[in-house]
Amino acid sequence: MSSIPKHISKQFDNELEDVRSRVLAMGGLVERQLENAMQSLSNSDSALAQSVIETEVQVNTMEVSIDEECTRILARRQPTAGDLRLITAVIKTITDLERVGDEAEKIARMAIDLIEQQGSRSYYVGISNLGQLAMTILHDALDAFARMDSGAALATAGMEPKSDEQYGAILRELITYMMEDPRSISSVIDAVWVARSLERIADHSRNICEYVIYLVEGKDVRHISIAQMEQEVRG
Amino acid sequence: MSSIPKHISKQFDNELEDVRSRVLAMGGLVERQLENAMQSLSNSDSALAQSVIETEVQVNTMEVSIDEECTRILARRQPTAGDLRLITAVIKTITDLERVGDEAEKIARMAIDLIEQQGSRSYYVGISNLGQLAMTILHDALDAFARMDSGAALATAGMEPKSDEQYGAILRELITYMMEDPRSISSVIDAVWVARSLERIADHSRNICEYVIYLVEGKDVRHISIAQMEQEVRG
Repeated sequence: MSSIPKHISKQFDNELEDVRSRVLAMGGLVERQLENAMQSLSNSDSALAQSVIETEVQVNTMEVSIDEECTRILARRQPTAGDLRLITAVIKTITDLERVGDEAEKIARMAIDLIEQQGSRSYYVGISNLGQLAMTILHDALDAFARMDSGAALATAGMEPKSDEQYGAILRELITYMMEDPRSISSVIDAVWVARSLERIADHSRNICEYVIYLVEGKDVRHISIAQMEQEVRG
Repeated sequence: MSSIPKHISKQFDNELEDVRSRVLAMGGLVERQLENAMQSLSNSDSALAQSVIETEVQVNTMEVSIDEECTRILARRQPTAGDLRLITAVIKTITDLERVGDEAEKIARMAIDLIEQQGSRSYYVGISNLGQLAMTILHDALDAFARMDSGAALATAGMEPKSDEQYGAILRELITYMMEDPRSISSVIDAVWVARSLERIADHSRNICEYVIYLVEGKDVRHISIAQMEQEVRG
């Protein structure tokens, strides 16, 4: 675990702290979007799904404003070392968070479609489990960011391959379902998109874990396996 | 159209020019990945598809090394104004390019699957057209970046909604196809993923256009419509 080093300029400390807390606020909003999207699906709540769609503008605005703040800090404070890594990690993190928000919005749109079609919901168990996993990974990634904890980031990234497995299993189940009842294909395809979005949310959350490790350890751990990441962080 | 302003330090000019040309080299590699992935699909060429998959490591390495170079420039040169915008635009552009490479790799994997299944190819026309459109948008986005031309970036971004339309039409066609011949579902789902990947490549290319506009005009044009973008750039 690590913390922001203190600067002679108290004002600069405040600026960095402000950026971090804005990222966490954006993360909290995106987490709620995902929770509500999944809840709208399980409770057939179109109004809740609609509210998820409407929140997207807010998420976009937060991304743009945090990005501007980062550029301002780069130009004015000309940070180096850990401060610079914080800023570049934030610039990347908010891009992934915004895309998680996009995926949550897509899930909400599919939920509205699925509610209208009133099809069978026997295949929802797998999707609901994958939803839980995606929410856990996203939450833990944001937690690792908040505490600047590279160990927690590593453990969280290690959960991501499970989402790929679950997604593969759901896909096979949905294909069988379509073959048995071809009239269901349109609605089952919507369920495929939901599963795909959840798998992508787990991917984006893993990216955030990688930025946390970069931020804390100064090591770029993208594009390597979880086992290699462990060596980099713990070795 | 714009160009990098000259600096008192010739060395700094060289560094910025080097970053730009490395982005273009990475873009060229990703373009070839996409072309080869689509060609492997139309010519049933598994060996070509395999080469696309193997190129991914190279793309990843380029992303990480350009990213490092950008961080080094930020720390050492402490750029401001247009130079700073160039560096932040590059950091974002390479993330999108890497993801285009990922999607091209996914298309190559689906191509191998589809070649093995030897199914009907009557639905390939639509996919091949969407592939052409995605390649054009990616190429023109990189061209706008190379020339730092915000007008060209705007025109290119304006083509992206067409890819959404084509993707929607393909999806409807593929669903009909599955309904008529449920035994084809597994292979048609692979075709759905190819179409989805192409649509995402067009999205990433539009993102690159938005960074070019930000870089040249200093205006953040994400999350707004094409009509609003026109006002921002031409207004």
